[in-house]
Amino acid sequence: MNMTRTAATFAPPVMEARRWLDGVEFPEDRPLINVSQAAPVDPPPLALRQAMAEFTVEQDSAHLYGPVLGNDELRTELAAQISEHYEARIKANQVAITSGCNQAFSAVISAITDQGDEVILPTPWYFNHKMWLDMAGVKAIDLPTSNDLLPDPEMARALITKKTRAIALVTPNNPGGVEYPSDLVRRFYELAQETGIRLLVDETYRDFDSRSGAPHELFQQPDWDDTFVHLYSFSKAYRLTGHRVGAIAAGTPLLSEIEKFLDTVAICPGQIGQFAALWGMQNLSHWVAAERDEILDRRAAIAEGMPRLEAKGWRLLGLGAYFAYLEHPYQIASDDLARQLVPEAGILLLPGTMFMPAHDPTGKQQVRIAFANLDRAGIAQLFDRLPALSF
Amino acid sequence: MNMTRTAATFAPPVMEARRWLDGVEFPEDRPLINVSQAAPVDPPPLALRQAMAEFTVEQDSAHLYGPVLGNDELRTELAAQISEHYEARIKANQVAITSGCNQAFSAVISAITDQGDEVILPTPWYFNHKMWLDMAGVKAIDLPTSNDLLPDPEMARALITKKTRAIALVTPNNPGGVEYPSDLVRRFYELAQETGIRLLVDETYRDFDSRSGAPHELFQQPDWDDTFVHLYSFSKAYRLTGHRVGAIAAGTPLLSEIEKFLDTVAICPGQIGQFAALWGMQNLSHWVAAERDEILDRRAAIAEGMPRLEAKGWRLLGLGAYFAYLEHPYQIASDDLARQLVPEAGILLLPGTMFMPAHDPTGKQQVRIAFANLDRAGIAQLFDRLPALSF
Repeated sequence: MNMTRTAATFAPPVMEARRWLDGVEFPEDRPLINVSQAAPVDPPPLALRQAMAEFTVEQDSAHLYGPVLGNDELRTELAAQISEHYEARIKANQVAITSGCNQAFSAVISAITDQGDEVILPTPWYFNHKMWLDMAGVKAIDLPTSNDLLPDPEMARALITKKTRAIALVTPNNPGGVEYPSDLVRRFYELAQETGIRLLVDETYRDFDSRSGAPHELFQQPDWDDTFVHLYSFSKAYRLTGHRVGAIAAGTPLLSEIEKFLDTVAICPGQIGQFAALWGMQNLSHWVAAERDEILDRRAAIAEGMPRLEAKGWRLLGLGAYFAYLEHPYQIASDDLARQLVPEAGILLLPGTMFMPAHDPTGKQQVRIAFANLDRAGIAQLFDRLPALSF
Repeated sequence: MNMTRTAATFAPPVMEARRWLDGVEFPEDRPLINVSQAAPVDPPPLALRQAMAEFTVEQDSAHLYGPVLGNDELRTELAAQISEHYEARIKANQVAITSGCNQAFSAVISAITDQGDEVILPTPWYFNHKMWLDMAGVKAIDLPTSNDLLPDPEMARALITKKTRAIALVTPNNPGGVEYPSDLVRRFYELAQETGIRLLVDETYRDFDSRSGAPHELFQQPDWDDTFVHLYSFSKAYRLTGHRVGAIAAGTPLLSEIEKFLDTVAICPGQIGQFAALWGMQNLSHWVAAERDEILDRRAAIAEGMPRLEAKGWRLLGLGAYFAYLEHPYQIASDDLARQLVPEAGILLLPGTMFMPAHDPTGKQQVRIAFANLDRAGIAQLFDRLPALSF
């Protein structure tokens, strides 16, 4: 038997990185700094937890199947909030709820591609996007970026073939942190429209964008939903990672195709997650704003600490949302560096090689730091340990 | 652009059937009898709901990511309970938790197949299996059954080609209700082992099997996990459909492949569903036994009512778990019949055509009745309405 598509797909990087911790002891005066995963480590606010608990005990619907594309009330509220945030008019039937944003991406790709098709991903890419394309039999075409980590629409144009079905962007970017300028996103949209492909924009980290107002104008374009597909997650804003709830905004006909995938892979999104997302949107806007301020302050702490690292040859390539993306100064590949950082510095981070195709060596010189869970004291500790390294 | 695999896949049958209700009014003295979906319509017992609520408020882990293959404690408990039920020795690393049993099937298929491969499904088949195979680019090879709805291993053998990767059985069967004899399952296992393919057995309705003890001996076979893949759902036993929690028992190397799929499609199963499944297994065995007794009594009520239907030319082909599968006596196709039953009899059921390939006409004469939510009074009403039909 030949190797299947799945066998040829790499293992989940976050799970692999966790295994590097096996058997390593961290002294009490130098605990592990885990900057490997982009996820809140604290629970949602008590009021939301209490509302979820009440819903669980009192509402039968908390425990029953719901519609495949999500509950009407949640779809309606999300459409309204997207409309407000992006100064556009989005209808409930242009929105679907998924069991997380990874599932949103998988569902869209399955709906629009066939075996042997191609999808363009700027690099460094989000590894789960690459993994899903591999498992779906779709070729990921890497679009290298320069040191500003911004993809070039004209370089993308040159990669488009008759097999290309989509370009998938992530902004604010994972792993790069960089916030794509509105004009840049617009140029990708125009390229996609002109060439008859889809533009997927994963905006999981939207709520932590440092810019105010709409981060792009795509929802305002006439017939946007023939071209643009918006992906979103409730996990970061409301700390709901353990409940798996994300969303897609797209054309209603495309959502009918996506419904087939979601029916077979999930049947429906979990009810408590859907309840929590709705409650959060209705009650936590001030709380989310404060969370954003805190993340932006941590981001500022990273920027302030950089001169100490730069003095040792490090370079900051991207900074934003949950992530700093850095070039390291050592003569070893980032995957070796990352593994050695666990015992030698008590730091768990992901190497650039995890975000790059094997044929592109630039990832060997890069690392991602998911700093959102580190307060200023933690960031100070990180910046104490990193410059002290010698490899 | 050609039609994609997803575009060529049929729409979710349960959602389609729901749309037949649009605009139909049901008089108060003849309310709708909905026997279309195999799902509890009542919530889990109060004690479980309260335990879930407490977990939600008090445990941070309720809201955070967990391992892709499910929480260790749940995997350990499930392995222990499978070991007890099937009189075998299953280890925690031979078990994985999924977001429902549909996802379990999708994950296994993705791990073991490639574009153009084949999987054998007895007919009538479970439509979500057929849908997923279509979307994965895998050819579903139908294995027709006789009027006893039991598949024949020798007929299956004749369908095996070098592209065949698996046979997928469902027992107790959806839609047929029939409980596959242990010997029959064993013969399929031996066929799979001999031909080097996998045998998937979806045992979603296991907890409502009328037989006591292990329904088959596969877990007792040496090296069972090279061949056999067991699929399970917590949704029916503990009424957790809205939480999406199912499971796979398989070889550890296969679970490593499945982990890639689950990482990209789900990241992890929802935490509250996992908590509820564990709590249910630890605390609700007596409650589940009583649920089973109730379902078996409803099944008996169906059998007792059949003579009235048989007098009108109906025939019972299969009965068990949540389902009765019947042959109707009318000169119209079952999909037309099912649509007309909504306004004319106040009954929503699924036609046999939804469980059959288009080239097999037998489904036109068949319907599925998911009776689990009908008490004896409801079943009596159903049996009042059906014989009164004239088409």
